[in-house]
Amino acid sequence: MTEPQVRLDLQRRQRLGMVEAIFGEHKTSEQIAACLSRLEAAGELALVTRVDQAKAAAVADLLSNVQFHAQARCLTLGDPAILLPALGEVVVLSGGTSDLPIAAEAALALRWHGIQSELLLDVGVAGLQRLLDQLARLQRAKVLIACAGMEGSLPTVLTGLVPQPVIGVPVSVGYGVSAGGRTALEGMLASCAPGLVVVNIDNGYGAAMAALRILKAAITGEAAVNQ
Amino acid sequence: MTEPQVRLDLQRRQRLGMVEAIFGEHKTSEQIAACLSRLEAAGELALVTRVDQAKAAAVADLLSNVQFHAQARCLTLGDPAILLPALGEVVVLSGGTSDLPIAAEAALALRWHGIQSELLLDVGVAGLQRLLDQLARLQRAKVLIACAGMEGSLPTVLTGLVPQPVIGVPVSVGYGVSAGGRTALEGMLASCAPGLVVVNIDNGYGAAMAALRILKAAITGEAAVNQ
Amino acid sequence: MTEPQVRLDLQRRQRLGMVEAIFGEHKTSEQIAACLSRLEAAGELALVTRVDQAKAAAVADLLSNVQFHAQARCLTLGDPAILLPALGEVVVLSGGTSDLPIAAEAALALRWHGIQSELLLDVGVAGLQRLLDQLARLQRAKVLIACAGMEGSLPTVLTGLVPQPVIGVPVSVGYGVSAGGRTALEGMLASCAPGLVVVNIDNGYGAAMAALRILKAAITGEAAVNQ
Amino acid sequence: MTEPQVRLDLQRRQRLGMVEAIFGEHKTSEQIAACLSRLEAAGELALVTRVDQAKAAAVADLLSNVQFHAQARCLTLGDPAILLPALGEVVVLSGGTSDLPIAAEAALALRWHGIQSELLLDVGVAGLQRLLDQLARLQRAKVLIACAGMEGSLPTVLTGLVPQPVIGVPVSVGYGVSAGGRTALEGMLASCAPGLVVVNIDNGYGAAMAALRILKAAITGEAAVNQ
Amino acid sequence: MTEPQVRLDLQRRQRLGMVEAIFGEHKTSEQIAACLSRLEAAGELALVTRVDQAKAAAVADLLSNVQFHAQARCLTLGDPAILLPALGEVVVLSGGTSDLPIAAEAALALRWHGIQSELLLDVGVAGLQRLLDQLARLQRAKVLIACAGMEGSLPTVLTGLVPQPVIGVPVSVGYGVSAGGRTALEGMLASCAPGLVVVNIDNGYGAAMAALRILKAAITGEAAVNQ
Amino acid sequence: MTEPQVRLDLQRRQRLGMVEAIFGEHKTSEQIAACLSRLEAAGELALVTRVDQAKAAAVADLLSNVQFHAQARCLTLGDPAILLPALGEVVVLSGGTSDLPIAAEAALALRWHGIQSELLLDVGVAGLQRLLDQLARLQRAKVLIACAGMEGSLPTVLTGLVPQPVIGVPVSVGYGVSAGGRTALEGMLASCAPGLVVVNIDNGYGAAMAALRILKAAITGEAAVNQ
Amino acid sequence: MTEPQVRLDLQRRQRLGMVEAIFGEHKTSEQIAACLSRLEAAGELALVTRVDQAKAAAVADLLSNVQFHAQARCLTLGDPAILLPALGEVVVLSGGTSDLPIAAEAALALRWHGIQSELLLDVGVAGLQRLLDQLARLQRAKVLIACAGMEGSLPTVLTGLVPQPVIGVPVSVGYGVSAGGRTALEGMLASCAPGLVVVNIDNGYGAAMAALRILKAAITGEAAVNQ
Amino acid sequence: MTEPQVRLDLQRRQRLGMVEAIFGEHKTSEQIAACLSRLEAAGELALVTRVDQAKAAAVADLLSNVQFHAQARCLTLGDPAILLPALGEVVVLSGGTSDLPIAAEAALALRWHGIQSELLLDVGVAGLQRLLDQLARLQRAKVLIACAGMEGSLPTVLTGLVPQPVIGVPVSVGYGVSAGGRTALEGMLASCAPGLVVVNIDNGYGAAMAALRILKAAITGEAAVNQ
Repeated sequence: MTEPQVRLDLQRRQRLGMVEAIFGEHKTSEQIAACLSRLEAAGELALVTRVDQAKAAAVADLLSNVQFHAQARCLTLGDPAILLPALGEVVVLSGGTSDLPIAAEAALALRWHGIQSELLLDVGVAGLQRLLDQLARLQRAKVLIACAGMEGSLPTVLTGLVPQPVIGVPVSVGYGVSAGGRTALEGMLASCAPGLVVVNIDNGYGAAMAALRILKAAITGEAAVNQ
Repeated sequence: MTEPQVRLDLQRRQRLGMVEAIFGEHKTSEQIAACLSRLEAAGELALVTRVDQAKAAAVADLLSNVQFHAQARCLTLGDPAILLPALGEVVVLSGGTSDLPIAAEAALALRWHGIQSELLLDVGVAGLQRLLDQLARLQRAKVLIACAGMEGSLPTVLTGLVPQPVIGVPVSVGYGVSAGGRTALEGMLASCAPGLVVVNIDNGYGAAMAALRILKAAITGEAAVNQ
Repeated sequence: MTEPQVRLDLQRRQRLGMVEAIFGEHKTSEQIAACLSRLEAAGELALVTRVDQAKAAAVADLLSNVQFHAQARCLTLGDPAILLPALGEVVVLSGGTSDLPIAAEAALALRWHGIQSELLLDVGVAGLQRLLDQLARLQRAKVLIACAGMEGSLPTVLTGLVPQPVIGVPVSVGYGVSAGGRTALEGMLASCAPGLVVVNIDNGYGAAMAALRILKAAITGEAAVNQ
Repeated sequence: MTEPQVRLDLQRRQRLGMVEAIFGEHKTSEQIAACLSRLEAAGELALVTRVDQAKAAAVADLLSNVQFHAQARCLTLGDPAILLPALGEVVVLSGGTSDLPIAAEAALALRWHGIQSELLLDVGVAGLQRLLDQLARLQRAKVLIACAGMEGSLPTVLTGLVPQPVIGVPVSVGYGVSAGGRTALEGMLASCAPGLVVVNIDNGYGAAMAALRILKAAITGEAAVNQ
Repeated sequence: MTEPQVRLDLQRRQRLGMVEAIFGEHKTSEQIAACLSRLEAAGELALVTRVDQAKAAAVADLLSNVQFHAQARCLTLGDPAILLPALGEVVVLSGGTSDLPIAAEAALALRWHGIQSELLLDVGVAGLQRLLDQLARLQRAKVLIACAGMEGSLPTVLTGLVPQPVIGVPVSVGYGVSAGGRTALEGMLASCAPGLVVVNIDNGYGAAMAALRILKAAITGEAAVNQ
Repeated sequence: MTEPQVRLDLQRRQRLGMVEAIFGEHKTSEQIAACLSRLEAAGELALVTRVDQAKAAAVADLLSNVQFHAQARCLTLGDPAILLPALGEVVVLSGGTSDLPIAAEAALALRWHGIQSELLLDVGVAGLQRLLDQLARLQRAKVLIACAGMEGSLPTVLTGLVPQPVIGVPVSVGYGVSAGGRTALEGMLASCAPGLVVVNIDNGYGAAMAALRILKAAITGEAAVNQ
Repeated sequence: MTEPQVRLDLQRRQRLGMVEAIFGEHKTSEQIAACLSRLEAAGELALVTRVDQAKAAAVADLLSNVQFHAQARCLTLGDPAILLPALGEVVVLSGGTSDLPIAAEAALALRWHGIQSELLLDVGVAGLQRLLDQLARLQRAKVLIACAGMEGSLPTVLTGLVPQPVIGVPVSVGYGVSAGGRTALEGMLASCAPGLVVVNIDNGYGAAMAALRILKAAITGEAAVNQ
Repeated sequence: MTEPQVRLDLQRRQRLGMVEAIFGEHKTSEQIAACLSRLEAAGELALVTRVDQAKAAAVADLLSNVQFHAQARCLTLGDPAILLPALGEVVVLSGGTSDLPIAAEAALALRWHGIQSELLLDVGVAGLQRLLDQLARLQRAKVLIACAGMEGSLPTVLTGLVPQPVIGVPVSVGYGVSAGGRTALEGMLASCAPGLVVVNIDNGYGAAMAALRILKAAITGEAAVNQ
């Protein structure tokens, strides 16, 4: 068995305009540190998602230029991109406080690509007024990311209220039939509100990258890639 | 193999205060007519659910005292019970026009037990104002039955708005992940709204019987049974 | 990323007649304590469900006016509401001893809203006589909450025997096909007994709130809300 | 592609003491007739399950010595075995009239192996007294086969009441979560009653063969096979 | 039972900038014609999805101003909106010819909102060169909609190649594990390509509305709604 | 909330001829000890299934007359019943060594009811000769219990080879699609071998009680109960 | 909406050594005929799978050079490839007669690539001797394709008996838990026999292409492609 | 209960040409050591899969001639077989670094049978160029094993590019809908690429044994077994 070697996708920033992201959950701290070292040597930024406190500390022992974001459960390599306010604003909403890690992962991933966002927590539909009170604020955003667990109704109600792109992020918060987030996911996919799009359960990072693609699409095609 | 014989539950009206209901979907018109004949001979009313036009006609050929309710897809035997307005009102809501057969089944089953109800169609959450406009009306009802297919958010939003008992009825209207009604069902079960209760998919009859139990519970215990 | 802020639903008691309930499973002790502090400052009662011994102790270190209920795995803030015996009695049944935490959660949630209830344990259908022996007692209750794991037959048999509202609570007790409680849930939804309603697996709190809605519906409409 | 040839298991009667059974649902009338012709030539009996009226007629056009049993939806070849009353009685119970085809398939398969059985229909648990009234009768049987759709509680309640072998047959009667019979199946497998065994959904034939194995086990080992 | 009345969402065009869409699959031709008549009277356009040839003809018998689009299986009321080329182009890709009805539904829904799109069929990944040959063309589009059945890899490969927004539409084309489209759906949700968003199985209409939201987001906020 | 009280089924031995069995997995050591104390006071034997070493030790600290069976993961109260060799032999087979705990649970439960059994391990079908070598031995048994994980083929092959009752016990040994035992379970239910019956995953106890019912059925009806 | 155009993968024969195959189930006869015409014009052979008698006739009305294979439910364009006996033999086994269409599809697809195969029907494991009798024959084959429905044990038993490559094809023959073929599929994947590989349910064509790849791998690498 | 005894399949090397493999996950270190001792006494090699560091150490304490392979999470007994380069090369590909344990298990199992393989990591389709760059290398291999988690597209794209046998190994790397590997598995089974075969999730060992069967099939039939 020949010794295997990691093959990084170093053209990614050029091709997609995105920094490298590493899915940290199934990797050891040694594997993560090895990837980051090579990215650092190539002058790249990086984001590692789904890392707990202990694994983060183990990586930090091996590599100096990393930072842990406890709320978002992410590691970053390097400094965030310069803010690009001209691309427009993103608002990240969540049905309840338990959705915070996912919402924070989305906000962090956006920030690492130069996008500032705002978090609106606890606007779940069981107390509808809390959402309706925010309508004017929501209408100023260019893209909305709506995180929700349990039955996941928030993105449906939201998409019926505003004309902007809404990205639903089902969250694995719940128990019984909603344990694991599948009920929220399927509720969002089945939504009667026109034009709601969805990402995988707990995929705050993916929602952020979708929002980034949308924000850049506003600027003309190829130009946007190297922004 | 000795010839089998149907065993009707003739104490049911006395025990539960409910007329006999026959699940018609998997029975032949001959089986349905045989059941109804024996109930008629015993002086009982009856309701047959999930019967299509053709099967209903075949039963009607065999038995004179039956009536077909096309919208609710039900057959009834005998005349409906005398109205009992003192028990209070039920409102049956539906997210969309496609839910009508289920909502109508609930209303018919209630009527056969002496309960008048009102149908509010097309109050789905994708156009939230349609529901909010009805709040004053809803607050006068004693029990609410909310039918919804697709992602099934209506009962969740409703239960967050009003203090009465709400019975969610998932409806098998949808496609892709919502085909068959399971997404609506699980969304209602996972609901973040406190105190929503749920029945099986398309079970308008069951929701009506639950409403009946609740209406009668308002009157003291044993007395209610023979009402 | 602007710092997020918790948004409590402080109109809930007025709108629904229910104290605030916090789903504790996915929240940290710090998050729970922060929510409770704000509720306490607003003069509200609160119930936190699905909290284990260790998390409860950590919250109690941060906040003095809380109490842990080990059997029900709940924290409460403040004193329970004054008893309202005029609303009628609730009986909470369980198929086996393993269902106790869920039954206790229901009873505690009822008590925090002023409703006294009685627990009848171990009346599962494998030894049917234990249930039949209690029929007279059951007929005096206004609402029945029936908790069952495994195949979950208890609510079905019970609903066939008595005319009152029965709320089935599937319990995640079992193994093999019944692990997680889904078999009990689907058995209750599929029940051949007319008018059984169901809540999510292990949702003792939800069953209690449904019972509360029913008890209050007995009193006339709007009046009940502020009871 | 060489022409394929059917390979019958002609040692089966000697090895297992059972006549050949053909699963008719996915076979054409030509395939069924070809199998039966070869069995007839070999002097064997045979049972073809899950055959509708039209396919049965098409087979009967090709082969004279067959008989269609409409209620059980089966074709038979040859005359039933001589009755063996010494092996003991089987009672086949069903929760509702809709379960009749499955119960009848079981009874027919037993009869074709020389076992007389009795059918008790409509003893579902929603009207429990109908079952309790039959207890004395049930206690005289050697084996009980209990067919039930919907939530499938009948075998569980029955197994808690009597000491004999009980074979549960889930039936694909129901809708919503119980459509297809899986809820009944899983409810029987999850049963809290000790010693209930289960066969596939709608497998009346399999239940009959299990009963036959049990009846023959009462007689000593090898002897039973050639009975 | 009071006679129910349809409640149309007539503020929808103003609120969301979208014409009314009716899900035609579970509605009768009478129900569809009634909805369309009321929309026509209100001066609205409308789109009815998932209508077969026969139902379309029945509606056309009742109403003159409708047009059937056989490939897309849709009915439209009124004339399409004036083309808005300034909003940018959409390309709709499909893995195979069998995905055509879904791709055509997306294209038609876009056209009814003034958006011209182009269809690229048969660019599935089993013959990768067919997709790679189109890269230059794809890079000129503002939004990409990628329809795929079977294992649904096309949107994943595409999202790894281009920086624009990609909306994946799983299609219910396949057999065995891919029958019904769930494998394609889950493959898209699980995609390792960053920023792919997904809609329900066969939801060409929803993908089009998501694309419309994105195209309008390029123009500043509120202005876009009434475009 | 009135203090709940355990309700034991003390007529069970008389009604079913079985000692009380307690499902230990979801109960605390205190709950188990309380049940056993009351059974001991009533002069009953008992079996507690699914108990690990630590919980067993905690129970043994509270109660003297109990014994832990590590291989079967069971606790017993009292001495096993006197052997009843006249009832006949049971052989318990397993596909692999990993199935041992389940096979041992079945053997222990049989022994506690006076039935001696023999274990045949590692007769899985991947090395078919190991099973075929045992055929003569198997034909002397009255009942066969076949435990298997992974794809669960053993009971199918066995049932095709011998005429006796075969009880399949799916075992939660496997990974990927077979993790949790559901593939083994469904394979046994779908078996093409006539008359195989099945119990829940890992339900060695249930298989033993089914075997006991069968062994007793060989002796005449009522007599068997009090054997 | 620009008119779409079919994009055939005309390099496929050169790249993979396989003729074009069209999945016919979701295509209209017009679509199929259009594809075949273009392939014919390019001098290619083709295979259309999953076509019923009526659709085949409609295609034949539009195109002369096609042939329908009723047993395999396939259409072919052109003449089969010249036989290549040097590549070795394939044996296609099936558990029962109902699996014939899938086995025949595999054999036809092989034949269209120059590979002769033999069909062995009815060697299911319920009558194990039928399979064991063929062992010598099986050991002469280079590759084995084993088709089975129900619990799908045949490939497992076979893979434990012979050293050659075995390709399992689950077949959608069964009912209850085995309806649709998923139980057979998962049983094959979970198999305890080392080295069994599996294709999608009913995918006889895929199994043939896998066998073709294996047969060609015996000849050295690149050379094989253009054989 | 007679003491059970392990029954090893000692004819396996002769019958299948494979060394004994033990599935270590559900076995204790004592059970593993006992199996290995008996195999060692019989002069056999062995491979134990799915063993963690701690269990490996416990086995090594009991037995001297074993070696732990941390990356592959396997124990081996004895020395690997002599290399057989004439059988040809295998390349093991993986979509990402997280798939390494499974790829390494495959490579180790091959090596223990005398087959050298090469690992190509991180050739996932989100950065397609990494795979296309390796095409020349891949075309020299005789068999390809492709491991992938998440949506599992790698084997599909690969099978469309090369004519050799490709064995897909779904890996349980992912979250949300892809947690546990089922999405990758079903994506591979549903693949539109002709001739891809699949093994169970995480079954690196099984893929290796399938590759071994294919490599040996290149040499004539019976001869290969004892190679």
